[in-house]
Amino acid sequence: MGSLFLRLRGTLGITASFLAVLSLVAMGRPIAAASPQAAGDPLPSWREGPVKQRLLAFVAAVSTKGSPDYVPVPERLAVFDNDGTLWSEQPMYVQLAFALDRARTLVAQQPELAGNPLIAAAAAGDARAVMAQGTRGVLDLVALTHGGMDTETFARIVRDWFRSACHPSLHRLFTSLTFAPMAELMELLRSRGFRTVIVTGGGTDFLRVVAAELYGVPPEQVIGSTLRTTYAVQGGVPVLLRRPEVAFIDDGPGKPVGIHTALGRRPIAAFGNSDGDFEMLEWTTAGPGARLGLILHHDDSEREFAYDRKSPFGRLDRALAAAPQRGWTVVSMRNDWTRVYPLSANPCPR
Amino acid sequence: MGSLFLRLRGTLGITASFLAVLSLVAMGRPIAAASPQAAGDPLPSWREGPVKQRLLAFVAAVSTKGSPDYVPVPERLAVFDNDGTLWSEQPMYVQLAFALDRARTLVAQQPELAGNPLIAAAAAGDARAVMAQGTRGVLDLVALTHGGMDTETFARIVRDWFRSACHPSLHRLFTSLTFAPMAELMELLRSRGFRTVIVTGGGTDFLRVVAAELYGVPPEQVIGSTLRTTYAVQGGVPVLLRRPEVAFIDDGPGKPVGIHTALGRRPIAAFGNSDGDFEMLEWTTAGPGARLGLILHHDDSEREFAYDRKSPFGRLDRALAAAPQRGWTVVSMRNDWTRVYPLSANPCPR
Repeated sequence: MGSLFLRLRGTLGITASFLAVLSLVAMGRPIAAASPQAAGDPLPSWREGPVKQRLLAFVAAVSTKGSPDYVPVPERLAVFDNDGTLWSEQPMYVQLAFALDRARTLVAQQPELAGNPLIAAAAAGDARAVMAQGTRGVLDLVALTHGGMDTETFARIVRDWFRSACHPSLHRLFTSLTFAPMAELMELLRSRGFRTVIVTGGGTDFLRVVAAELYGVPPEQVIGSTLRTTYAVQGGVPVLLRRPEVAFIDDGPGKPVGIHTALGRRPIAAFGNSDGDFEMLEWTTAGPGARLGLILHHDDSEREFAYDRKSPFGRLDRALAAAPQRGWTVVSMRNDWTRVYPLSANPCPR
Repeated sequence: MGSLFLRLRGTLGITASFLAVLSLVAMGRPIAAASPQAAGDPLPSWREGPVKQRLLAFVAAVSTKGSPDYVPVPERLAVFDNDGTLWSEQPMYVQLAFALDRARTLVAQQPELAGNPLIAAAAAGDARAVMAQGTRGVLDLVALTHGGMDTETFARIVRDWFRSACHPSLHRLFTSLTFAPMAELMELLRSRGFRTVIVTGGGTDFLRVVAAELYGVPPEQVIGSTLRTTYAVQGGVPVLLRRPEVAFIDDGPGKPVGIHTALGRRPIAAFGNSDGDFEMLEWTTAGPGARLGLILHHDDSEREFAYDRKSPFGRLDRALAAAPQRGWTVVSMRNDWTRVYPLSANPCPR
């Protein structure tokens, strides 16, 4: 403990951090020390400071027997936005990149589809023109490119796409653009009895294809937007058909609804990065007992991207302004993370 | 083993049963013996015979390491219908009894509601008149009696109702009309790594109130029908409002859709009792590997009720006819169960 103390002493807010570690050691299952130099640091990609202290203190408070803020395991529910919170969402959502590629494939198969200006723009890879159509345009594109097939066919198409789909400027596969610090946080939470549930504005069935591999999250812990789905028997084989019609939008005020429908419990911790996560953070942190709301602020133009109030993807304005009075923790990607992406990454094939 | 063998020898199909038990003992974690006299019988309310053998053999086959039909724990998913499968549904669904009581309360508070003949009939307790209005009438009644309030208020009303709500002829609280053999089966499955998920045509939020107490099933493992739900902040407090409008009907072909939306996996075992469970059984048993489909046949007019093809609640016709060719196991309540309800039951207060 002595050398740990010495190493920690230089950091901001040493007392709270030290007490948090002490309480973990003293009150029950110890978690590994909070120093990045220590082999057992559960959050090695998080820089020492008030944010890291807050995370460790919260986890200790709710999961240590005898703590006044102790929460039983079944109620240890943490929800995570995906785009911009668990992986990069610039210069466009990963799922929009999928939709553009899929539009190109569809137009190659059925050239008459290009008569629709929206599809033509998508097939040409013009994300800006698609976005200019507003929500309606994006939903129409999603319905066309994600619907009209059964769930197993869709999962296969998505899986194939992820094998080679590349970020346009970062020269990594999209599957290598997850945030290492967030993966560490999810792992720490799970090691302390939490369920880590992804609550995405994107499609449930899209993200489920890679959620286990990328985040260790099983399909039943992915909540997202859905197409209307119907049951049919085709040639004697039962299938679930994805109709080209959006059934539920799991964004903004839809997120608490999606969480309630799927889980019937209010989370005690919520992690987001945009105004689309405002209601999820509000709903989560309005409950009684210890609560944690966290907003990831993209202020790192060197290692990732810097954007907030004016971004077409992941706009962060209202939630950032509300954070201080709500007690939400704002994470500076630039200052609070020693690393953004995982060490081992799959480069693009070309 | 010798005395166990002697005790088992008199029962039908001794060889298969004995082999099933042997395989459990030999191949991994043993489960308790299959004799009802043995203290460790996991299914004491199931009479020895082919049905009980089939259940034990299936559980052993999918959960014993080294078995050719072994299924990893995350894929051990068993789905259960509720009305008529886990508790009694005659002379009417429990939730319809709730709706009638609630209509009476609402009419007492707002007498003008009785101007609607449907509500007047419901408030008078006339289930037959309500049912005569068809699906539309029932949905209208559900919307009125279950909607127009936030989720926490609804849960409180349901909880209060269950404290004293009684079956009209059996002189037990509704909460004492669960089927003991099914509870044993769920417990056995859970002890072998299964998740036991309830997939009900009734309301998700209605059943969640009692599912943990009655069945040991947490809220996230209850899938059912839903009202449209919206998020709002009222007097500074965020709430989820139940709109008087049915959003999803989790019955018939809706059951596989509800399962897919919530869990993203296909179950390996499904338990039902009516044609409303047909598609769930079909979807479940169409998958590869070992599968179990089970239909509970209500043929016990002495201890419970006897009904199938012509019943307005829990109609069983198509599924019963299809069972032999589909390999679905039909359980005779009269012959296969030594007991129907739990030993300890709460009688009605009056």
